[in-house]
Amino acid sequence: MAVYTQVPAEEIDAFLTRYDAGRLVSAKGIAEGVENSNYLLETTGADGSGHRYILTLYEKRVDEADLPFFMDLLDHLGARGCLVPRFIADRSGQRLQQLAGRPACLIEFLTGISVTEPTPAQTRAAGAALGELHRAAEGFAGKRPNALDKAGWHDLARKCGADFDQIAPGLAARVTEELAYLDAHWPADLPRSVIHADLFPDNVLMLGDRVTGLIDFYFSCTDVRAYDLAITHSAWTFSHDGATFFGDRAKALGAGYAQAHGLTDAERAAFPVLCRGAALRFLLTRAYDWINTPADALVTRKDPLAYLRRLDFYANADAADLLGA
Amino acid sequence: MAVYTQVPAEEIDAFLTRYDAGRLVSAKGIAEGVENSNYLLETTGADGSGHRYILTLYEKRVDEADLPFFMDLLDHLGARGCLVPRFIADRSGQRLQQLAGRPACLIEFLTGISVTEPTPAQTRAAGAALGELHRAAEGFAGKRPNALDKAGWHDLARKCGADFDQIAPGLAARVTEELAYLDAHWPADLPRSVIHADLFPDNVLMLGDRVTGLIDFYFSCTDVRAYDLAITHSAWTFSHDGATFFGDRAKALGAGYAQAHGLTDAERAAFPVLCRGAALRFLLTRAYDWINTPADALVTRKDPLAYLRRLDFYANADAADLLGA
Repeated sequence: MAVYTQVPAEEIDAFLTRYDAGRLVSAKGIAEGVENSNYLLETTGADGSGHRYILTLYEKRVDEADLPFFMDLLDHLGARGCLVPRFIADRSGQRLQQLAGRPACLIEFLTGISVTEPTPAQTRAAGAALGELHRAAEGFAGKRPNALDKAGWHDLARKCGADFDQIAPGLAARVTEELAYLDAHWPADLPRSVIHADLFPDNVLMLGDRVTGLIDFYFSCTDVRAYDLAITHSAWTFSHDGATFFGDRAKALGAGYAQAHGLTDAERAAFPVLCRGAALRFLLTRAYDWINTPADALVTRKDPLAYLRRLDFYANADAADLLGA
Repeated sequence: MAVYTQVPAEEIDAFLTRYDAGRLVSAKGIAEGVENSNYLLETTGADGSGHRYILTLYEKRVDEADLPFFMDLLDHLGARGCLVPRFIADRSGQRLQQLAGRPACLIEFLTGISVTEPTPAQTRAAGAALGELHRAAEGFAGKRPNALDKAGWHDLARKCGADFDQIAPGLAARVTEELAYLDAHWPADLPRSVIHADLFPDNVLMLGDRVTGLIDFYFSCTDVRAYDLAITHSAWTFSHDGATFFGDRAKALGAGYAQAHGLTDAERAAFPVLCRGAALRFLLTRAYDWINTPADALVTRKDPLAYLRRLDFYANADAADLLGA
């Protein structure tokens, strides 16, 4: 959530000469994204009418070897009508560049704002956009393992160890117990596909009740498709602290997704387990960051217990509670 | 250089209804400014044609009581043709608002980029823009004391005390000696006016060799007018580390300033002393921040010695060296 690599404006202007993008007229470092450095650029445009772009420099958290997967995915989705920011090729066809010693890409800018307190109508639109994404992803040949799958959760839990109990007494035991439950109940043969894996309201651009963009695909990977809806459910249907479940949003999410894609009976039956997995995944990454970030750091630590509350809710819910009848 | 106060997009959209600004279509937190939180907004515009604004929330470093001074100054300068970002009044005429518990203002967005390695032509344009600012400032009634005047330097030096020598051996004695020199030689009766007091390349927006905006007036105050040119000189005419003086830029700065305003003989005679003061002022604030910022903090510490090198240069220069014959 900061600009880690400062790039002189002159260098950005020179960089843009590789593209049919016109000359730079404004460059602002923006506080956004998963530990990348991002600039919002304005250029004269190839035709002088003005154009905006996002310039992303990849810092250590994104592996350069994964970038072709993300680029090909967004090309595939964009060609099938999904509102996703495409990576822009330079005049020689190159999308991945180097700038200020970092891998760097010029990316489409999309308008829209990210809501903080989604309404049911907005949640329905997000559900529909996720369904459309899953439909458009069919036939995409790229594969990328999910580093935060169940094996990844076990890994994170081991790294946190006894430190969980610094966050809340008894949390270490609760995590161990939940992992055992998920090992026993995680569905083995549900349809898999490319998933977004991080479709929080932050990553959905909207104008009013309309989705104008899905962004930040840097967690996208190949995994159980309905698990993507479970992640989205955990992100859109609770108060931020996880203490309040909004049934109206959840019903709207389910209806929006069903309109564009829908769940099989097996997916629906497994949905509460998938939601428990989603809640545990964010509980674990937040707990890991909590334990490893000094309390006085400039980075805001997100409360892991907000996901423990969701986990508790999911452990006592059935599919009808979570998605409507 | 971060967004300290996160404002939900819905709140920004609601905030904009006070203005004739249209509806919000994009909001990006930008990493800019003197410890304020800044958002680059795009709206539909009152007429639907699209418009951009800067939304600034004032954090602790800017005193709310100073905001009317800054607002009136930019109105005064803007009305006299200076390219400065004006504070925008809402429909009731109010410019200072509250948002997310902070004083907040909607401000004009100006295009242009900040150069990192100015050319002589760009430095000349910056000098001319400073001269025009000084001309336009004539007749401005507002007053604001300079907290970083000579008394302020003594204050900072006392606070740093023996810690200077952590930065470089002998630095404490060097600062004491320089303060004594400046106490004895600081000019008493040069013309005073409102000055920008921080006209680094960061704070000048340009397109090519043309200035499109002067920004970040939050250090502006009433002080010796030619001292503003000395600050600008220290910021534009050296390599970043202070090791190299660029005579061609310095000559261009002096020529640009002379074209728009000019120095009196007394100002020119005092110019080397004013430059020593400018170099000491940035040496002191950087040293204070260096001593008080942990080495591993996310904030980049700026090297105080880059200004010690400038100070050493100025101590051996005359006005002709610094501004051309």
